[in-house]
Amino acid sequence: MSSSILPIINTLNQPTSWAWVEQAITHLNIILLDHSHCERKAAGVALNLMFRYPSYTQLVRQLTAIAREELEHFEQVNQWLERLGIPLAPLSSPPYAAGLKAEIRRHEPERLLDSLLVSGLIEARSHERLGLLANHCPDRELAKFYGGLMASEARHFGVYWVLADTYFERDVVTGRLEELAVRESELLVTLHPEPRIHS
Amino acid sequence: MSSSILPIINTLNQPTSWAWVEQAITHLNIILLDHSHCERKAAGVALNLMFRYPSYTQLVRQLTAIAREELEHFEQVNQWLERLGIPLAPLSSPPYAAGLKAEIRRHEPERLLDSLLVSGLIEARSHERLGLLANHCPDRELAKFYGGLMASEARHFGVYWVLADTYFERDVVTGRLEELAVRESELLVTLHPEPRIHS
Repeated sequence: MSSSILPIINTLNQPTSWAWVEQAITHLNIILLDHSHCERKAAGVALNLMFRYPSYTQLVRQLTAIAREELEHFEQVNQWLERLGIPLAPLSSPPYAAGLKAEIRRHEPERLLDSLLVSGLIEARSHERLGLLANHCPDRELAKFYGGLMASEARHFGVYWVLADTYFERDVVTGRLEELAVRESELLVTLHPEPRIHS
Repeated sequence: MSSSILPIINTLNQPTSWAWVEQAITHLNIILLDHSHCERKAAGVALNLMFRYPSYTQLVRQLTAIAREELEHFEQVNQWLERLGIPLAPLSSPPYAAGLKAEIRRHEPERLLDSLLVSGLIEARSHERLGLLANHCPDRELAKFYGGLMASEARHFGVYWVLADTYFERDVVTGRLEELAVRESELLVTLHPEPRIHS
């Protein structure tokens, strides 16, 4: 699986800007709190897809595993928050996820394809950004934690990609992924003023 | 904890009728499929509460653990479905959960209290009914599986009760639990014609 996945992660249309890294490193506490929200939201997205497609055996099986893992990471991030004395709190979302969601076509089967690819792209971007945090975070323990998580994000991207490839023709999947990847990068061109994993 | 929990489970306002046991045992395949849906829905309910109350540390911590466990059970039930050759499929819901949801008051903090107690009552009823399946299911392996799960349902009831007790006065909790328990039993007085865990 890895040979087909990693090149695709590498084809995120545009890499993250250095401005994001600076913003994130300067506001690590907020980034960590936002990361907690991201893990919970990722579990929610997987669960919602299972609700919407209850008879898609492969999808249900794979997304159950993803949802369980996201909740495990959610717990781990929350333990970091507790260790650092950062209380749980609501946090406004950057426009990124809503912008991507708006690209999901409303009719089936395109809705399923787009939902899987959008989730995959978010995982791919998270993989890239957690990697940047792993490399640049001054707290070595926290950096190690990010390094551990980034492998999962790549795996999750792989799962979403394989599911899309299971239910749709390969050229339809790659064509649509390219379109969505362009939009995904566009959404990040202007750095969101509030520090977030996807600002 | 157990000393305060078990008596409350025993005070489910009315026990399940023998008619439900007969219906369930006669349609074990449908019951198992519905059970799968119940576990996924239970994970969804826990996750939704975490979304709604993101800064309630105890609630977030406890419900993360519950959601993870429900997903684990969901996987286990799905493995049983696969073993028995029952394909995943959508299934209409009985009126039970919607009827209970209608009892949840719309304003805070009552909304939180009612949400916790309704979830707790559903877990308590599931505990009772999985126990009945464990005792009466003719497949001994499946019966053992139900027996293993029923302990978790009791624990989950306990978690919801303790959370209610954390955020509200004890007499407010017990008073409202009694009211909701009456309604919960009323919803089950007439056996739903389609076999379900909560028919």
